[in-house]
Amino acid sequence: MKRLEERILQDGNIKEGNVLKVDSFLNHQMDIRLLNEIGKEFRRLFDGCPVTKILTIEASGIGIAAIAAQYFDFIPVVFAKKAKSKNLDGELLTSQVVSFTKGTVSDIQVAKKFLKPEDTVLIIDDFLARGQAVLGLLDIVKQAGCKLAGCGIVIEKGFQDGGAFLRKRGVRVESLAIIEKMENGTICFRKN
Amino acid sequence: MKRLEERILQDGNIKEGNVLKVDSFLNHQMDIRLLNEIGKEFRRLFDGCPVTKILTIEASGIGIAAIAAQYFDFIPVVFAKKAKSKNLDGELLTSQVVSFTKGTVSDIQVAKKFLKPEDTVLIIDDFLARGQAVLGLLDIVKQAGCKLAGCGIVIEKGFQDGGAFLRKRGVRVESLAIIEKMENGTICFRKN
Repeated sequence: MKRLEERILQDGNIKEGNVLKVDSFLNHQMDIRLLNEIGKEFRRLFDGCPVTKILTIEASGIGIAAIAAQYFDFIPVVFAKKAKSKNLDGELLTSQVVSFTKGTVSDIQVAKKFLKPEDTVLIIDDFLARGQAVLGLLDIVKQAGCKLAGCGIVIEKGFQDGGAFLRKRGVRVESLAIIEKMENGTICFRKN
Repeated sequence: MKRLEERILQDGNIKEGNVLKVDSFLNHQMDIRLLNEIGKEFRRLFDGCPVTKILTIEASGIGIAAIAAQYFDFIPVVFAKKAKSKNLDGELLTSQVVSFTKGTVSDIQVAKKFLKPEDTVLIIDDFLARGQAVLGLLDIVKQAGCKLAGCGIVIEKGFQDGGAFLRKRGVRVESLAIIEKMENGTICFRKN
């Protein structure tokens, strides 16, 4: 997605450890016009898929998923919760997400009643690197017995193995910008 | 807001300890059409205010704020982060939020560069009970030297003291549904 790539080049910052900061428009401050363009693009890519629910994970995925849902006939968005919340009860679908940057393993949870076997789920998230968050969400989709339309990712780090691993497993992954490499402060995108 | 009150009566559940669960449409699964109605209503209430940024707090506020921003000329949304994130750097505005239900005190943080003295900020959140989250956000707005348009709250627990405390301090608080009391599984709303 050209406009997204341009924005990453314009406002993204590379920090130590190949961390790409896009906090000025995506995951701390959110550019709502850009999020609308992103939502439209997800719809274009998954057009024809009978998606009934969007599944994401707190916190950065929520705004992207909420705006995108408007382009999927206003279907509900469910976000997986990371911490155990007093407000979660009833039967829960639980999985675990490893964070390599933080060195932590955390539980993620979705109330079972919000994902039904008759649902077709589109997973949306801001980043795909090693794919741990998506794997946790896929596990939850599988436990719920839902069909999976695929994964809509805003930025994929193509030099990490999450995207390749998921595609090899037959998961449809559509990333709006795939970073091939980041070196010496320069970002190169994968050509389509 | 009539449609919201009806939805709370229809799908809200009261749990022990006066916890109102609205997870089927507001803060776990999100009804995107309802969020659009909520966004429109915030715009109607704050019409004429020269709001330049919406400030919220992760996680439940994000979807509501992102959708609402579309009715405020697509102004940026900034969400305060609760945990220390590796992805936060630069100068930070920090405050603390007490959670009475969880018995915890947590730091919330906003990168200073996203809130400027020339900004007029509208705070949006899903719930207002004792007002701790809003007080933390107000503290950050004050540290940033921004002007405050007010607070847009989806559901206020009118039987707790947060709303009264804020209004006494001169903060404009607009709550779309104010629950006067919850007793024996019955919800009574405050009349406008």
